[in-house]
Amino acid sequence: MRQSFTASATGRNPRRQARGVRTRDAILRKAVDIASARGLEGLTVGTLAKSLGMSKSGLFGHFGSKEELQLATVDAARQIFIDLVIKPALTAPKGMPRLWRLVDLWIAHVENHVFSGGCFFTAASFEFDSRRGPVRDRIASVMREWMGTLTRAVHGAQKEGHISTTVDPAGLAQELQSYALGAHWATQLLEDRAAYAGARVLALQRLRSFATSNSPRVG
Amino acid sequence: MRQSFTASATGRNPRRQARGVRTRDAILRKAVDIASARGLEGLTVGTLAKSLGMSKSGLFGHFGSKEELQLATVDAARQIFIDLVIKPALTAPKGMPRLWRLVDLWIAHVENHVFSGGCFFTAASFEFDSRRGPVRDRIASVMREWMGTLTRAVHGAQKEGHISTTVDPAGLAQELQSYALGAHWATQLLEDRAAYAGARVLALQRLRSFATSNSPRVG
Repeated sequence: MRQSFTASATGRNPRRQARGVRTRDAILRKAVDIASARGLEGLTVGTLAKSLGMSKSGLFGHFGSKEELQLATVDAARQIFIDLVIKPALTAPKGMPRLWRLVDLWIAHVENHVFSGGCFFTAASFEFDSRRGPVRDRIASVMREWMGTLTRAVHGAQKEGHISTTVDPAGLAQELQSYALGAHWATQLLEDRAAYAGARVLALQRLRSFATSNSPRVG
Repeated sequence: MRQSFTASATGRNPRRQARGVRTRDAILRKAVDIASARGLEGLTVGTLAKSLGMSKSGLFGHFGSKEELQLATVDAARQIFIDLVIKPALTAPKGMPRLWRLVDLWIAHVENHVFSGGCFFTAASFEFDSRRGPVRDRIASVMREWMGTLTRAVHGAQKEGHISTTVDPAGLAQELQSYALGAHWATQLLEDRAAYAGARVLALQRLRSFATSNSPRVG
């Protein structure tokens, strides 16, 4: 899929190429939105074509198969998360402020309903966790990447002397991930409107409880 | 569905009734197992009949529609959880020991792979959280009931003077639920074999951090 995308983007007419990229981005943005609510299996070329007012054959030109569409949708959701959460967090000062900014932007990202079904990756994780194949592998790989980012952010706060070195970075990353999953569950299933705010408060309390006296105050 | 079950169980031959109840229990036990891995939407009368070596028409005698089967499966999973987790926990002394026993049995229940796809209710929650209808409503109702049980267990530990009254029982219940969801996610998607053990340690540490000097030591 990525290959055929690259092939079409290296065509002769640069203006047409740019339009192709924009169209593909717009299609995938919609695909992520649909999949966040209906699941990646509920994302069919037909559903997507209808919601975009495009023809099925037009869409098939971009994605040769349902699996290609699903993989491209996972990649698009990853890129949106990088743009809205990870990149802006990197502008915060190193250490605890950067870790907190990452957590805060992450919760805001799901809280603000960037996608209609809430957190795309939570939905995709639980949809594919008992399956095998390239889509599950791609989701797991993005989630491992995210846990790595969170873990490194905790480790970074330790290197700056802001978080006690007795804390296990991967353990704290898993704990923070659990608060977000719990908030997502309570929001989506139980319609608890205070769940994300609760997760933010809890995450902040936990980070403060691990902070050294050198750490800038966050939150 | 419950009504048609009651109707068939009030027939004239008591031995036949008992056999009918046993058959229905066995069918639903299998249904919960399949749904834990393939989802409630992946649980078709055809799949279920095949895995039980029964005819489709035999199964349709028990469940008139897919929705009836899904609702009966949710009810069966609830009953299994009550039998394996909630009832045994009630034999522990009131207060902190009972709260800890509840948490410990609950984690053991998912850790021991009672169902092949892990926690039935986590899978069902995320499968139906963006839908509307009776199946979603039943799942949400069982999950509210569970959060109520956890919340009352925290409150019970406060009444015994074992947990500080500054703790919000519903907040702590949501925190414990989050650890279990996080462990389920890491186990199922990331194949992290230590995730349930990690959630148990974290839950225990948190409960101990809220314990008063009157609380018996748990764990």
